[in-house]
Amino acid sequence: MIDYRSDNTGRAAPEILEALVTANTGTALGYGADEWTARLQDRFSELFETKVRVFPVATGTAANALSLAAIGPSWGLVYCSEAAHINTAEANAAGFFGGGLKLVPVAGPYGRIDPDAFATALAAVLPGQLHRGVPAAVNITQASDLGTVYRLDEIRALSETAKSRGLKVHMDGARFANALARLGCSPAEMSWRSGVDILSFGATKNGGALCDAIVVFNPDLVDGLAVQLRRAGQVWSKMRFASAQLMAYVEEGLWLHLAQTSNAAAARIAAAIADVPGLRLVAPVEANEIFLEIPSGVMDGLEHDGFQFYRRSATLARFVCRFDVTEAETDALVTSLRRLCAAPARAAE
Amino acid sequence: MIDYRSDNTGRAAPEILEALVTANTGTALGYGADEWTARLQDRFSELFETKVRVFPVATGTAANALSLAAIGPSWGLVYCSEAAHINTAEANAAGFFGGGLKLVPVAGPYGRIDPDAFATALAAVLPGQLHRGVPAAVNITQASDLGTVYRLDEIRALSETAKSRGLKVHMDGARFANALARLGCSPAEMSWRSGVDILSFGATKNGGALCDAIVVFNPDLVDGLAVQLRRAGQVWSKMRFASAQLMAYVEEGLWLHLAQTSNAAAARIAAAIADVPGLRLVAPVEANEIFLEIPSGVMDGLEHDGFQFYRRSATLARFVCRFDVTEAETDALVTSLRRLCAAPARAAE
Amino acid sequence: MIDYRSDNTGRAAPEILEALVTANTGTALGYGADEWTARLQDRFSELFETKVRVFPVATGTAANALSLAAIGPSWGLVYCSEAAHINTAEANAAGFFGGGLKLVPVAGPYGRIDPDAFATALAAVLPGQLHRGVPAAVNITQASDLGTVYRLDEIRALSETAKSRGLKVHMDGARFANALARLGCSPAEMSWRSGVDILSFGATKNGGALCDAIVVFNPDLVDGLAVQLRRAGQVWSKMRFASAQLMAYVEEGLWLHLAQTSNAAAARIAAAIADVPGLRLVAPVEANEIFLEIPSGVMDGLEHDGFQFYRRSATLARFVCRFDVTEAETDALVTSLRRLCAAPARAAE
Amino acid sequence: MIDYRSDNTGRAAPEILEALVTANTGTALGYGADEWTARLQDRFSELFETKVRVFPVATGTAANALSLAAIGPSWGLVYCSEAAHINTAEANAAGFFGGGLKLVPVAGPYGRIDPDAFATALAAVLPGQLHRGVPAAVNITQASDLGTVYRLDEIRALSETAKSRGLKVHMDGARFANALARLGCSPAEMSWRSGVDILSFGATKNGGALCDAIVVFNPDLVDGLAVQLRRAGQVWSKMRFASAQLMAYVEEGLWLHLAQTSNAAAARIAAAIADVPGLRLVAPVEANEIFLEIPSGVMDGLEHDGFQFYRRSATLARFVCRFDVTEAETDALVTSLRRLCAAPARAAE
Repeated sequence: MIDYRSDNTGRAAPEILEALVTANTGTALGYGADEWTARLQDRFSELFETKVRVFPVATGTAANALSLAAIGPSWGLVYCSEAAHINTAEANAAGFFGGGLKLVPVAGPYGRIDPDAFATALAAVLPGQLHRGVPAAVNITQASDLGTVYRLDEIRALSETAKSRGLKVHMDGARFANALARLGCSPAEMSWRSGVDILSFGATKNGGALCDAIVVFNPDLVDGLAVQLRRAGQVWSKMRFASAQLMAYVEEGLWLHLAQTSNAAAARIAAAIADVPGLRLVAPVEANEIFLEIPSGVMDGLEHDGFQFYRRSATLARFVCRFDVTEAETDALVTSLRRLCAAPARAAE
Repeated sequence: MIDYRSDNTGRAAPEILEALVTANTGTALGYGADEWTARLQDRFSELFETKVRVFPVATGTAANALSLAAIGPSWGLVYCSEAAHINTAEANAAGFFGGGLKLVPVAGPYGRIDPDAFATALAAVLPGQLHRGVPAAVNITQASDLGTVYRLDEIRALSETAKSRGLKVHMDGARFANALARLGCSPAEMSWRSGVDILSFGATKNGGALCDAIVVFNPDLVDGLAVQLRRAGQVWSKMRFASAQLMAYVEEGLWLHLAQTSNAAAARIAAAIADVPGLRLVAPVEANEIFLEIPSGVMDGLEHDGFQFYRRSATLARFVCRFDVTEAETDALVTSLRRLCAAPARAAE
Repeated sequence: MIDYRSDNTGRAAPEILEALVTANTGTALGYGADEWTARLQDRFSELFETKVRVFPVATGTAANALSLAAIGPSWGLVYCSEAAHINTAEANAAGFFGGGLKLVPVAGPYGRIDPDAFATALAAVLPGQLHRGVPAAVNITQASDLGTVYRLDEIRALSETAKSRGLKVHMDGARFANALARLGCSPAEMSWRSGVDILSFGATKNGGALCDAIVVFNPDLVDGLAVQLRRAGQVWSKMRFASAQLMAYVEEGLWLHLAQTSNAAAARIAAAIADVPGLRLVAPVEANEIFLEIPSGVMDGLEHDGFQFYRRSATLARFVCRFDVTEAETDALVTSLRRLCAAPARAAE
Repeated sequence: MIDYRSDNTGRAAPEILEALVTANTGTALGYGADEWTARLQDRFSELFETKVRVFPVATGTAANALSLAAIGPSWGLVYCSEAAHINTAEANAAGFFGGGLKLVPVAGPYGRIDPDAFATALAAVLPGQLHRGVPAAVNITQASDLGTVYRLDEIRALSETAKSRGLKVHMDGARFANALARLGCSPAEMSWRSGVDILSFGATKNGGALCDAIVVFNPDLVDGLAVQLRRAGQVWSKMRFASAQLMAYVEEGLWLHLAQTSNAAAARIAAAIADVPGLRLVAPVEANEIFLEIPSGVMDGLEHDGFQFYRRSATLARFVCRFDVTEAETDALVTSLRRLCAAPARAAE
């Protein structure tokens, strides 16, 4: 079986687990008052070229929902892409942790928010129209849930519109490293220098094991977030084992190396099937995901060939390249797709 | 420095981290649909001698709050000890996840609920008195937050009172293993056979690293809990790394062995200082915690001697024995206490 | 000034205030345990030809949000029209009282839900997909927020789709009387006989003063709703003054008479301007609201002529006919519209 | 039957209903943008000798819970008397609207908070102890739930302790007028001049019909409260009918006159039974409530004599004097009590 189901079906990078094991020495204060977590603050501040506060959390859902709850208020409106993970795949955690906050889906290309559509949506709620709620934040999924990546000027356009009305900017960086690898810019440029106040910093999908993080650029959000994390059961008493993972994740560029690997695999597949008749890329492949319009008979054939992937609909399949995908595996997928699309199975469609 | 501050300042048992590392092989479906988590269900069902559902979670706060939220309703009253962790140390996570549920503290000896006081409290809310809320659950901390252990007949008395009014029984087993080691009964006897519907199954304080669990005996609670865990950001996508830890925790009796070690250390200290003038055990030492009334000058002296512990008040100190405390360390504490209580420092009090 | 701004800018029907004053006699138990409220139960049960439970509440927002909260669970998905009042005009009260429930807007004609679009939306969430939430209810605004009315077979189609997946049906009847007057059917036919489980029964917009009501057909919803209303501060201690209003509202067909009056006025205006060039009805006029595409210069002219109405956009105006609108007032509006649309002001557009 | 059950079993003062009826003229903008509500702001600002914001609400539960929610944050701790209405009789509305805020009961005499006990409770939560929550407010019930009245210096002592730690002060003035009549001070002295930030201004218990109000002294709380009221379904669209009631309530001292009447009746009864053997006032009678320790046989006798009152326990009865209680009714109660306490019925105890 060759697994293209999701980033999270994969292994963890061995370096990360080694760091966790290495942290198992001596005693340390609980709930983040340990030295590993202190060093994590310094390391990430260096990485982001500004003083940040980093809070390890168990999952991306927690990172997103608690970031938005920290922005508040509970009657806030949070603008996001229609395809955004917070809108489609987190059981409305944002609405729950936010105490009733409401997501406002905005249209746009390939899982991204169109800046003009955002401006229009925002303009539709005049200040003082209490019955509509109060615009509070915009959520930017980077990379998007359709595997595309916002350019810096797109992020800045959204941020500027947001800030002009007093909204905060949250970036859902479940695939932050993949987007960063794609853009080739600095973490600072893709976050606070482009107006991001608070970041869900994903690690799990890119070789992590049991933790992601929230990185806070806007210091006004820190205190409220800290107590909400505690109340959310997201503050490990033995925090060192989480902080050590995150340290290893960014050490010597590991995170970028892993993301480059998975991005490259996806790009390789996309390029190799570009001319295959009967297939159509639903979105540009800019990170590690491939969304492919594909005859259902071909999907059957792929499964028969031993490939695992998600059927999003009768004719839409998603393939995710993990950091540990091999060249043999990508070659195999390309070969199967080419064969199946040419075969009688296809004619039967 | 010799550290008696908390169970969570300690290391993880090496076996647990080894299991985590060993799980880093192959691909596996996310969010608990993996084989490790499937085996965990079987293993715990065997352990508890009944079919249970086990949900790994990041922290004990999450385990407690989400267990109570699963019981519901959001207007429920949850009876607990005045000293209960959910009442004093979890930032009202229960009230938050419970959507407004309310804790009702009940008096009792040494952090336990007095069954008669519970019956009286319950009788004060007549059915139909909507303005008072609706009694929904009783929370039993086993071992208690003062280091004592409910006897089986006490648990049963509370359960019977609860069930007679339709309440569910939640056990906060952050130190379940310590209590079990003390009682010498089976996990089944201390839980569902005594009326427990849902259990916060602690591992972190007893040699775990990054996860605890919820063990559900009452099948009615499973579906609602499952979605609430997802919404709470408590369902790891790479769940295998959590499930593997919990498997290792109970394998070959590791958990009981660890708990016996820490319990024994606490008992040894308690016995050795029983006759020291100026000291007074605030509660019987039945698990791994010692609450000691102690002159503040003696506390100063202990710190000077290199001991770490928590000052709960000017004259109340807490000492926690971890699974990896050594006999040399317990001897050292006893020696220091004896010397300090005999010394001029004491006279200055 | 002639006021077409909203139903709620108007007076109360004198009969309703008289009933309130008449109730000011003797003493009565609080919180709905009085005789007026008891009679209200009987009267509405008779009116709806089935045993119902009626809860007076202060506002339609409360009626809607608490109805949906009573349906639950807090992770529920509630399908509604994109234009639904709960989605656009109640500050996400449903999400708040529902403890995080999420609204799912569904497309359809003129503020109604298209039954096929609803079926499609529902089919997109498979049972067990916890990360998407759990479909829980459909919300039907009758009359719709664009002034149209669901036919009985439309309601039934939505109900059937809903029930086939275990969803409950909530009707937002802020303008229930207007819709009923339009359809000419019985209250029972337009509610529980068409699958409605719980109804926001509006009175304020149709001559009421200070209360609306929730009418519960599905007895399973009563107990949870009762305590949630209490917790919501929606249970008046001197409930008789609310119940007396609702009794008067339905006495001798007052409510239908009022609704017929306002409906007829709207229909009269709509008919009289059907042939006016430059105007376009945005939706069929089936209740007491008129949504008119209209040049902004004409809007200016109307205001200059002394008419009050809401500008929904630069070229969209809403006119609402209240129960106490006079024929002279409707004639005046028609005359002005005809004159303005013919005038140079229009040419300047 | 002579009714001593509660303030809310009574009539409304006719002046209040007359004002409501008188407001039924012309059209007016909805949701509080009308002239009656504007005048209410001015009138209450004059009454309280400072610029205030007044929000009419349906019930005292709404007033209390939304006042506390406006103070926030959702992880706040609210200190209150053990006997406080918010703690015992509002279905934890405060916890619900507050998004998980927690009530911390504090001991004190006769339903009041002891200032020293409050200081001690507050000192037990050090800044930064996130696991305990964050002290946010103190709730002062004036008059208390045992019918006593805080002196101004008591209110100020609580306020000073509160403010020294950054807490806000909320007064539950369900019986504000009764307390004011007792103290004989100005509304300003009993509220903001003594440190109160926000006030639940009760009217219903003292001759009102369908509304109470929130009076906000601290302008920082206004904006958040306004949107939360809207979301709570506590903003009537035809607000004029509520505002008109509140205007009438305070016009020409009506409210104080009503409260003096009920207070005087309670005082008269208390004085007249002071020497009756077998009876004991459980708390000083300082407002309109009498809490009486009384043999259960005497309670039976009273009921036989046609009196209605609440049995709080087997030997504790509560008698509430309403604004419309007559001298004949108070005489009758005194006479019955004297007779029953002297009679064989008593001997049988």
